[in-house]
Amino acid sequence: MTLYGSIEAGGTKFVLGVGDGSKLVQRYRFDTTTPDAAVSEIVAFFKQYELAGIGIGAFGPVDVNPASPKYGTILNTPKVGWQNFDLLGALKAQLNVPMKITTDVNVACYGEWQEGAAKGKQNVIYLTVGTGIGAGVINQGHFFLGRAHTEVGHIFLQKHPDDHYEGHCPYHGDNCAEGLAAGPAIQGRFPAGAASLAEDDPFWAIEADYIAQLCLDLTLSLAPDVIIVGGGVSKQTQLFPLIRQAFAAKLNGYVDVPALNDYIVPVALGDNSGVTGALLLAEEAAREA
Amino acid sequence: MTLYGSIEAGGTKFVLGVGDGSKLVQRYRFDTTTPDAAVSEIVAFFKQYELAGIGIGAFGPVDVNPASPKYGTILNTPKVGWQNFDLLGALKAQLNVPMKITTDVNVACYGEWQEGAAKGKQNVIYLTVGTGIGAGVINQGHFFLGRAHTEVGHIFLQKHPDDHYEGHCPYHGDNCAEGLAAGPAIQGRFPAGAASLAEDDPFWAIEADYIAQLCLDLTLSLAPDVIIVGGGVSKQTQLFPLIRQAFAAKLNGYVDVPALNDYIVPVALGDNSGVTGALLLAEEAAREA
Repeated sequence: MTLYGSIEAGGTKFVLGVGDGSKLVQRYRFDTTTPDAAVSEIVAFFKQYELAGIGIGAFGPVDVNPASPKYGTILNTPKVGWQNFDLLGALKAQLNVPMKITTDVNVACYGEWQEGAAKGKQNVIYLTVGTGIGAGVINQGHFFLGRAHTEVGHIFLQKHPDDHYEGHCPYHGDNCAEGLAAGPAIQGRFPAGAASLAEDDPFWAIEADYIAQLCLDLTLSLAPDVIIVGGGVSKQTQLFPLIRQAFAAKLNGYVDVPALNDYIVPVALGDNSGVTGALLLAEEAAREA
Repeated sequence: MTLYGSIEAGGTKFVLGVGDGSKLVQRYRFDTTTPDAAVSEIVAFFKQYELAGIGIGAFGPVDVNPASPKYGTILNTPKVGWQNFDLLGALKAQLNVPMKITTDVNVACYGEWQEGAAKGKQNVIYLTVGTGIGAGVINQGHFFLGRAHTEVGHIFLQKHPDDHYEGHCPYHGDNCAEGLAAGPAIQGRFPAGAASLAEDDPFWAIEADYIAQLCLDLTLSLAPDVIIVGGGVSKQTQLFPLIRQAFAAKLNGYVDVPALNDYIVPVALGDNSGVTGALLLAEEAAREA
């Protein structure tokens, strides 16, 4: 039995895992405070095991270019104390294990690609709509990377005519997807949260419109084979038919896309897309070491 | 002296070139009518020369995946007679010369990357704003390709509050970039065309706003090192400061981008981005043959 480690480094919590292959056998969570505290927790937890590799999915912005001297460094984040913190370097200094790091959404994308809803595809988008909005992108079988990783949650959207919410994004107000459609923006409209809304509440058509607009923009700019929608908001499964319907109306046949039931789909791995992908990334790190 | 051939296959005209390396020595144009007529013109013109390779930039949608059995085939175009026409196959049947084909905007992107405004960059977008709107994309030094090439001209934009134009896109009305900001949409507002407008006409701020929105979306989804803006509308050089200003206001510091004077830039090769890129692609075809 070969053990691998996974780290899901989030802005509010860290989730560590130990897996036999991609099968999780142990999990440990702690709240995100300072980088030093996080590193201590991670090192203490993983030192209990003999690991062949560690895969990390981190909140961004983070340098995920293996060729960069700053690979594994958290970049210009508003998160106090984390700016320019070399997370990968700090872990490598204390754990003698091969490691790879990418974004939190990229590991989820990787998990869904290898073992979930995107098996056998080459161009995959994992779109999370939860506390924030973001996307992991696999293009021709590799993580997409330009000058940096994508930040698609802040793409500007057309505001729905029936929506009078002032928006939640500190940078873009009600202009961007995250400001209009992420969990906190839903809670901004309905303080009791999404769970308090009936399945047929008319708000879901508005939410679906926003997600459909974002899927449209991603279709036109990244041309994926499939868009997997995950994150807390996507647990409202009544959204999917509404998203597909709004997407079809907007695209209006301009480009060919796969049948929409196979194109805009929910995650297949539930809450485990990220940990699965991080464990697979750990295996990759071990193979390449 | 080694001669190469270039084909810019457009919806209204074809432009053929013969170059000594990437230096154009002969050019020939004809109107786009039927596929058969185009192939006859191309074959007759190129048979006058001993060519080492031919590079083709074609209007889309076109299959530009070298691994695809339909590589070089015009796909689902509204252009009568051209649907599913195997352009590359038809040319190969009559010209015994190594050939490569990509989109018209990709060859322009390639030209600007190798010899123009994007020298030394790895992630390049060439955005044309002319008769239509589209982008050529080079990612990590290779043409970006997902399930298909991008179609960014149809990304949805927020309509400017001072703009009351009904939009020009037959698919998306006033919702998409092309419907709001391409040449025909300008002419729809001002029948005498863009050239009739003063440099300080307030419309240019609206046009700049649309191009800035598109640059913002592309920044967030494709993370380029540079966005080169070409096409007829970009000859209005007063647009560039307005685009950069609107872009900065919208992005609002959310992600780091290069200094805007180096990030959103005009073409360096004038009207020759496409032919330069096609000749370079011809060289590449010859090298790989």
